[in-house]
Order: sequence, then C-alpha cells, then structure tokens
Amino acid sequence: MSGCSEKVVHFEVTARCSATGARLGRLSTAHGVVPTPAFLPVGSRGTVKALTPDELRDVGVSMVLANVYHLYLRPGVDIIERAGGLHKFMKWGGPILTDSGGYQVFSLARLCRVDDEGVVFRSHIDGSEHRFTPEAIIELQERMGADIIMPLDHCPPSSASVEGVVEAVKRTYRWAVASRRSHKKPGQMLFGIVQGGLFPELRQQAAREIVSLGFDGYAIGGLSLGESKSVMWSVVAETVTCLPEEKPRYLMGVGSPEDIVEGVSHGIDLFDSALPTRVARNGALFTVRGRQNITKANFRYHDSPVDPECDCYTCRTFPAAYLHHLFRCDELLVYRLATIHNVRFMMRLMERIRETIKDNTFADFKKDFLSSYQVTNEEMRVAQKQKWLSKARDHHGDID
Amino acid sequence: MSGCSEKVVHFEVTARCSATGARLGRLSTAHGVVPTPAFLPVGSRGTVKALTPDELRDVGVSMVLANVYHLYLRPGVDIIERAGGLHKFMKWGGPILTDSGGYQVFSLARLCRVDDEGVVFRSHIDGSEHRFTPEAIIELQERMGADIIMPLDHCPPSSASVEGVVEAVKRTYRWAVASRRSHKKPGQMLFGIVQGGLFPELRQQAAREIVSLGFDGYAIGGLSLGESKSVMWSVVAETVTCLPEEKPRYLMGVGSPEDIVEGVSHGIDLFDSALPTRVARNGALFTVRGRQNITKANFRYHDSPVDPECDCYTCRTFPAAYLHHLFRCDELLVYRLATIHNVRFMMRLMERIRETIKDNTFADFKKDFLSSYQVTNEEMRVAQKQKWLSKARDHHGDID
Repeated sequence: MSGCSEKVVHFEVTARCSATGARLGRLSTAHGVVPTPAFLPVGSRGTVKALTPDELRDVGVSMVLANVYHLYLRPGVDIIERAGGLHKFMKWGGPILTDSGGYQVFSLARLCRVDDEGVVFRSHIDGSEHRFTPEAIIELQERMGADIIMPLDHCPPSSASVEGVVEAVKRTYRWAVASRRSHKKPGQMLFGIVQGGLFPELRQQAAREIVSLGFDGYAIGGLSLGESKSVMWSVVAETVTCLPEEKPRYLMGVGSPEDIVEGVSHGIDLFDSALPTRVARNGALFTVRGRQNITKANFRYHDSPVDPECDCYTCRTFPAAYLHHLFRCDELLVYRLATIHNVRFMMRLMERIRETIKDNTFADFKKDFLSSYQVTNEEMRVAQKQKWLSKARDHHGDID
Repeated sequence: MSGCSEKVVHFEVTARCSATGARLGRLSTAHGVVPTPAFLPVGSRGTVKALTPDELRDVGVSMVLANVYHLYLRPGVDIIERAGGLHKFMKWGGPILTDSGGYQVFSLARLCRVDDEGVVFRSHIDGSEHRFTPEAIIELQERMGADIIMPLDHCPPSSASVEGVVEAVKRTYRWAVASRRSHKKPGQMLFGIVQGGLFPELRQQAAREIVSLGFDGYAIGGLSLGESKSVMWSVVAETVTCLPEEKPRYLMGVGSPEDIVEGVSHGIDLFDSALPTRVARNGALFTVRGRQNITKANFRYHDSPVDPECDCYTCRTFPAAYLHHLFRCDELLVYRLATIHNVRFMMRLMERIRETIKDNTFADFKKDFLSSYQVTNEEMRVAQKQKWLSKARDHHGDID
C-alpha cells in the first residue's frame, strides 16, 4: 500500500444498504477515525472560514480539507513545516486531507505551460511564476503531513472537447504514476484521482488505469463544475463500477445536502465542498425544508431560532431576528454563527445517513429527505456557481 | 435616586489609593456586580464585534456598552423590545450600559436642526430624517432595558469656540433636567453627562449643575476627540473635583491601556472604548511592551504566542505565525482571535489595577506599567484617529 505501512491506517466497510449502493465504513488515520460517509468542510488556507478548531470539533467534524496550492503560496510550506506540520500550525488535531491544487492551477491561477513533467503557472495573488511537478506536490504534502494527500491532476474545464479530456486523462495518469512512485511517507494515505470529463467511457478507462496503480483510495475529480445534475450522477455511477469495493471513494467538490444524499446512494464515502460555509456567509442557512435566506424581511421579527430542530450553538442561543439584524449590519459575528449552523447541519445529515445505512433504512431516509428538502432551482444554482467562480478569480482566489 | 428604587442597584467605594485618586468599588446592577475600575467593550449595535456573549464572559468582561443611535436605526427598538429587551436580544446576561447617541448624532449623522427641545438629523445609513428629544431617548432606553442609561447630550466638536461650548453646556443641562424628570424605570440607573469642551472652568460649572440634579453616576463626555493627552488630563482633573465621592464616575470613549491607567489615578471608575477591538481587527495586539503589529514580517516565523504571558484562548492555542498568516489572507477567524486577545488584555489590566488599589500599590504599578508600555506616538495617534473618524463616516458608521 502506498505509504500506508502503519497498521493504524486503513479503511473498512462495515455495513451496506440493500436497496442502494450506500455503505457504512471506518477510515482510520494516524489522527483518528473518520466514520464514513463523511463530509469534509473546506479550509483551503488552513482555516475553515470563521471557525476555530474547537468549534469544528464541537459541531462533529471528523476531518477537514486544506489545499496545497493555497498553502504553498501563503504562508509557504516552510513555515508550516517549521510549526511542526499542518496539524500543529492550524491546531487541528484530527485528520486532514490536502488537495493537490491541480484544480486551482487549472482554474484559478494563470496557466503558462503544461506538459508531462508538470505545470508552470502564475500566482493569482501576485503574478509570480511557479512550477508544480507531480513529485514536488507529493513532497510538499509529505512535509505538511496531512493524513490523506492527493496527486497533481490535470482538471479540464467542463467545456473541454473530447480530445482535450483525453489528453487530460493521459496526463493525469502519467502524473499518478510519478506521484505513486515518489510517495514515501509512512502513515500517510495517497489517493488516486479519476478524471474523464463528462464522458462515461473515458471515466471508466481512467478509473481502471488509476486503480491498476494501487492507491489507498480513489477520488472522482472534475465534476460539479456547472454540468447538469443528471449528467453528473450518470458519470459517477459509471465510474464507481470501476472502483474497488475495499477502498474509500471520494467525490471531490460535492456538495449540497441533496447531492450528498444522492452521492451516498452511489457508494461514495467522502465528500468535500465549500458550499455550506460559503452560502452561510451570504445568509443562506440550511434547514430540512431547504435553504432559508436569513436576510429576508420575514426574519425581522422572528423570535425563535432559524431551525428549532437544530442543536447547534447558534440555534440554541440566538433568535433568528438577532441573526437577521447582524447580517443587515454586516457584523462579523454572524458569519461565524451562520457557518456553525450550516456545518452542524451537514454533520447531523451525515450522522443520520450513517444511522440509516446501519439499520438498513437509508433508501427510505433518502426518499423522505429529498421530498422535504427544497432544492435550489437548477438554473439559479448554475448561475450562482458561475458568478461565484468568476468572483473568486477576481478576489484573490477567496473561493472557500 | 433617579429610578434606583431597588436596593440591589447601588455603588460603593471599598478602597482608596493613598498616593493617587484611584479607588476600588462595586457597582451593583440588576444583572450583576461590576467590580470597578472597569472597562466596557463597545458593542454599539448589540454585538461586541466578532465575539459571542460566552467569549465576553470567558475573557472576564463584566459590562458591555451599546448605543441607542445605532440600535434605534437598526434593528429598531420595537424589535429589541419584542425579543424581551436588549439582554435577551443579544443574549448577554450581564450588565449593559447604553449610550444615548448624543455623540453619534453630532458626529456621524447629518445634523439638521438642534434646539432646546431636541435634535433633528438624517440617518447615516439611508438619509432618512429622525428626531431625538431627551424624553424620547429616555423612553427608548427604558424599553431596551439596559442597567445604566445616558441622557441625550450636546457634544460639540473639539474645534468648537468657547461660545459654541457654552451653548452646548447649557443645552446639555436643559436636556439633563428633562431626562431626569422623565426617567421612571426602577432598577435602571441614569447617569448625568458633563460637557464643557477643553475649558476647565466650563467643565467645573457644568459638573456642579449636573450634580445638582442628582444622578446615579456622572460621565465626562466630549473628550478623547483629538486634543492632546495633557489637555485632556487637566480637564479630567478639574472636572473630577466637582463630582461627588459616593457616585460612580465614567470617562466616556477612553481608551487605550495607558489612558486607563492614567484615568484610574484621577479617580475614574468606568471606561469604554472601541479602541481595543478596532485596532485588533487591524492587527495591532496589546502586550505589556505596547502594541505589536502582527502583520509585520517579523511574525512570519514566530512559533510562540504573540504574548507568552497572556492566558487568552488565542495565546494559549495559536502560534503568532498562524495569526500572521490569517491576517495576510484576510481570514475571518483572525479578527475574532485578535479581539479576544485585546479584550482579555484589557480585562487583565483592570484586574491588576483593582488588585493594586486594594493592596495600596497602585502608584507603583502605574509607574511600572507606563515605563514598560510603549505608547503609540502622539502625532501618529491623532492622525490615525482622524483617519478612522472620517472612514467611519464614509462606511455607514462602522465606528466600533
């Protein structure tokens, strides 16, 4: 196993849903066990926006995601290494997954050259030129010491032609070979990433090739980039059939509550997304009925919590009218309060998912959840995503 | 006594410094006892920026300040009343002092007319026209239910002529008479405000007149507005001689750590200022050696806490290098971490001041503190203050 010489690091599936592909598992890392299916809040720069490590623990987070591209540019890996690694730098004692930054290099930075040896890009912060190679990305992640690391991958845009996607799949494979070879750190898992755009047969081919290299887990990358949900799920379904049963499966950048419920039914074990924290800062709070916009006038006189069923600090403590007031005044405190609520909502959702897989009622739970949870209109969702992506590019990559 | 029919509400001086005017006291309110000298963090809009009520308690805050002008405009006093009062709205169970908004009307809003009956102004938020009378300001504060309330006062700019200041003093007196008469709420203290600009004899006259009305405490307003420190302290010294020994004395809008130590030696019991929280959000962290700017390059590799002597959550948990990184990335979490540190610094300072008054070593403490605490250069301080005041006017009155 790639780098996983320590026995403590392993994955096991402990239960399966009889009606869907959902599975219950335990992902054991050097920094603790992650019960799966699990959702990872995004802390690209070594901080889940607005929350302390204590608050992450309090709401039930088991693993967080950070990002090599962002941390390499700021503060620099030397500073994190000097602090004793990423866990000590950000004072999060639980498991961490670092993403390789492949997606950021191809979407956020100004790309200069890409070839089989690596990629040259300009920083979105100051325009300085940098080179990432598969080997360097592994080394950076070994030095930062996350529990799960990702290889550099070539992530084509959702508008890419079939030729463009074929090239990205080939390159991602060659980089995977180089990454697999250079990874040495014991106790640190290295996952493979499956690319292949929206072409099911390319996805399957990519999955088989990546699996043949023998990684500790498999990620599906390059989805949730603006394509329709039905296309995304058919790609996921085709890909999963080519992934080994005994390894964890990670659907990168997904997603919303309804997407996670759907993804679990396809046999996905790990999810990450900036959505819950990002929309919280815009005043969109998750409830079982869907997102509620706390800035709307109907919350002005709302004396009860935003979600009376929620056990988070925000809902236990403050009336919705107070949150509404703080949002209208742009008060710092409210970004935290809203984030606590949304992350706790995601953790309660994952707890419920795991419970229902365990007692084999997940299919009913999925049906009930999706019938009561009002999904954000697809057209609006795509428009918001595009707006956010272009805003992120304009705003120094503040894309968590 | 004005409104203080309940026995629980009273003030007593329990010790005096033999070498300075410093005094130790207990201010008992319906929501708890405030050991004095005390520093009140500013939460103009019903939130001390970036902190929860629990964090305020954790760092040792005994009383907070909110502001009628801000809360009247947003969310509106009806909403606060409906929530059960300001304590319940902002979920702060300890004592609250509300400032009348006199200062804001004369500095932040667009003033339209002022006469003996009150003041007409335009909101700094949307330009809407409003009228404050002394009676209305008392009523608004009775409805919000703070433990200590302030009457409407006429606060002239520091550049005002002697005639302008005389007029403001006269008007403040007439408004004080009207406020005193209309205040009815039991268990709620009403303080009088002494104006008089930088003219010691006007201050003394104002103090004697306001004291003759019999308030529950006395505030010195209209200072720390850009005048030199030596002028300010001579005005304070002259004013305090005209205030009764047995009532609490409150120096409004002051201040910095060094100002508070100085103010205590003049016999001041209560202070409030947005300085510790505001400068925290700009990266200036208090230490016994003075303010440290965490954004400076020397903190890049700083593995220990900003202030190894500090017991706050921030210093107990994070290396300075992490705070430096978060500031450089403009990450939300750091505004809270820096605020926690600065407020805790103020609370530790107040604890130390009270201890040394109690064991009669305050004069030595003052000398030691002022010799090691490097004060921000006066010229830079005045320039920063002016910059901040003009910025506050441009930025929707975000002047906490």
